[in-house]
Amino acid sequence: MADWLESLDRLARERAKAGLTRQLLPRPAGDRVVDLAGNDYLGLAGHPEVVGAARQALAAYGLGATGSRLVRGSTDAHAALERELAAWLGTAASLVFSSGYLANLAVIRAAAAVCDLVVSDAYNHASLIDGCKMSGRPVVVAPHNDPAGVAAILDAHRGRTAAVVTESVFSVDGDLAPLAELYAVTSARGALLIVDDAHALGLLGPSGSGGVRAAGLAGRPDVLVTATLSKSLGGAGGVVAGAEPVIRHLVDTGRTFIYDTAPPPAVVAGVHAAIGLARSADDRRATLAERGGRIAARLRAAGFPVADPAAGVLSVLAPGPEAALGWAADCRDRGVAVGCFRPPSTPDGSSRLRLTLNAGVPEADFARALNVIVECAP
Amino acid sequence: MADWLESLDRLARERAKAGLTRQLLPRPAGDRVVDLAGNDYLGLAGHPEVVGAARQALAAYGLGATGSRLVRGSTDAHAALERELAAWLGTAASLVFSSGYLANLAVIRAAAAVCDLVVSDAYNHASLIDGCKMSGRPVVVAPHNDPAGVAAILDAHRGRTAAVVTESVFSVDGDLAPLAELYAVTSARGALLIVDDAHALGLLGPSGSGGVRAAGLAGRPDVLVTATLSKSLGGAGGVVAGAEPVIRHLVDTGRTFIYDTAPPPAVVAGVHAAIGLARSADDRRATLAERGGRIAARLRAAGFPVADPAAGVLSVLAPGPEAALGWAADCRDRGVAVGCFRPPSTPDGSSRLRLTLNAGVPEADFARALNVIVECAP
Ligand SMILES: Cc1ncc(COP(=O)(O)O)c(C=O)c1O
Ligand SMILES: Cc1ncc(COP(=O)(O)O)c(C=O)c1O
Repeated sequence: MADWLESLDRLARERAKAGLTRQLLPRPAGDRVVDLAGNDYLGLAGHPEVVGAARQALAAYGLGATGSRLVRGSTDAHAALERELAAWLGTAASLVFSSGYLANLAVIRAAAAVCDLVVSDAYNHASLIDGCKMSGRPVVVAPHNDPAGVAAILDAHRGRTAAVVTESVFSVDGDLAPLAELYAVTSARGALLIVDDAHALGLLGPSGSGGVRAAGLAGRPDVLVTATLSKSLGGAGGVVAGAEPVIRHLVDTGRTFIYDTAPPPAVVAGVHAAIGLARSADDRRATLAERGGRIAARLRAAGFPVADPAAGVLSVLAPGPEAALGWAADCRDRGVAVGCFRPPSTPDGSSRLRLTLNAGVPEADFARALNVIVECAP
Repeated sequence: MADWLESLDRLARERAKAGLTRQLLPRPAGDRVVDLAGNDYLGLAGHPEVVGAARQALAAYGLGATGSRLVRGSTDAHAALERELAAWLGTAASLVFSSGYLANLAVIRAAAAVCDLVVSDAYNHASLIDGCKMSGRPVVVAPHNDPAGVAAILDAHRGRTAAVVTESVFSVDGDLAPLAELYAVTSARGALLIVDDAHALGLLGPSGSGGVRAAGLAGRPDVLVTATLSKSLGGAGGVVAGAEPVIRHLVDTGRTFIYDTAPPPAVVAGVHAAIGLARSADDRRATLAERGGRIAARLRAAGFPVADPAAGVLSVLAPGPEAALGWAADCRDRGVAVGCFRPPSTPDGSSRLRLTLNAGVPEADFARALNVIVECAP
């Protein structure tokens, strides 16, 4: 066996010993499991209007976009979605990517073209961390959700133009960033604020327009928003939204935009339909808020110190990776899918059960799932 | 205006002056333009069986995968596609990503876990270059398609375990890498060979199984294959195929696998159907070969020194970026879409018309397009 294959095997054994082996568990169509693990917060992935719009676009365009956005991949469906996203998010322009991951790599690299320092929240998503690394600029990791900490970093680097990168609702714990306070810090210092709105889009702000708009920051020229179209919008893809010169820069130079196949028109059209539904989904958002409060109260009563979720994500500390895995497995055995985050997926090395809300889950299923989660607790 | 916005504007003006501004030209559904620019080589993106499979999966699963592959995003459709890809490519296992870009970032990072040197062909795709950068390992750029050059680099770094990264058919010029010779070099030195088969999959090898299989290297434990599912397969997504320990490593640690939403089941199912068609598309491959020879001969007769394409891509040197842009625009005005690659999309700073073959283009349209291209030549 080649040296490097042997090394891979050794690494696999080390992960196994640490309880960090991961397993793919494909689900069948029409799976009856109660979903408290996915990110289909508004229950739109299977909505007839979303599926119908995707089906129509499939018939009109075929499956793939057949090229990158600058070659053959831009269709009227892409342009329409970009207008709709900019209008919803309240920005001058927007640009759609094939994933939120690639959108995040692009936006930080674009910022790095005109900034010489990147400040990144300690709990940022892997795609943002990778974006910071690829920016080629010095990166300073800021303490989590700490505007004063960010101010201190910026003040220590006076004379530099900085980009400050954060999520609005953090993907692991579901906690909310103090966006208004962060913006006060960045704008006073001529810094750019980049916010990944992945877990707030569709959930927070007027008409579900996201955490940035909820914080009153929509359309500020020194704020850039990114998001995935795969969570509350039930589809796939990513977006960068902001001032026109930024979008122009991405079109002209964004490597993960230029050298990547455009997302399929059917996906784009389905997401567009989902935005229409999400804008008027105040009822679904109310359901989520009520359920979030309920689940947190039940967990607290069972002895788990959790706060009410800011949006659709709730995380519960487990004693260790094996306990977290066992808890999630027991829930699954009883028909409830919950997430299980272990190192290195958690920013602080802890292991957690991660619960997500889904307005599409029927109330009776949700109530039963709550019981299952508490009964399976370690 | 903020400093950094002003800097972005300055950069935009510099690009404009250099003729490097890019424009998105969305196409309508049912566009009558003859497509010699996209990557739908086999004309499968709009094939009724592909569209039908996607439509069925849409009905069965909804639009989005609703989560990452390790949470809720793995469906039976994903697992089935991975088995089919491994069988077709002749590898022990395969893993599907949401894009070829993210697959490439992942495979090089995985290799870097057990290699301490990355050798990258000078003409490699942006996603491979980014993957090398993100690997955290020293990167040596090898002269284009030069096995002796690669051997010299490996010999100069004896004692290191190296990963050598190349495309099989290069995306800009369409030329073929000397894979068998490269493998002779890497295998003799205990190095790993990573091949991006994006532009050969569906076109070369038995049943269109790709350039790696065509070179007799399928299934070698020290060869890793990546590809996009967006070109000859007419869909979207990416794949890494190879030995089981590599796939296991990617599942357990691949950041762009773990922290990215799974590709939509409908896209996955459509691609699966496309593989079935591609396997038995010897007729379409014959059409492409005939057309490739014809277009090259016409261009040579018109004074442009081009070689017969190795697969579906042909590139023609233009006198400069503006001439290339004008040539492509004139073709478009006459109903023929051709690609136009300018710096920084070209590895050598030149500007080119880039023509791609598409077996789905009717013969009469293809013949007319040939005339248009030659008549519009600068
Ligand atoms: C905060 C955050 N940003 C970005 C992403 C990546 O988006 P995508 O899945 O579209 O690549 C995710 C999750 O997938 C996320 O949770
Ligand atoms: C050689 C090569 N590798 C990788 C990619 C990226 O694949 P994807 O478009 O699926 O991200 C492309 C083109 O898009 C390519 O031409």
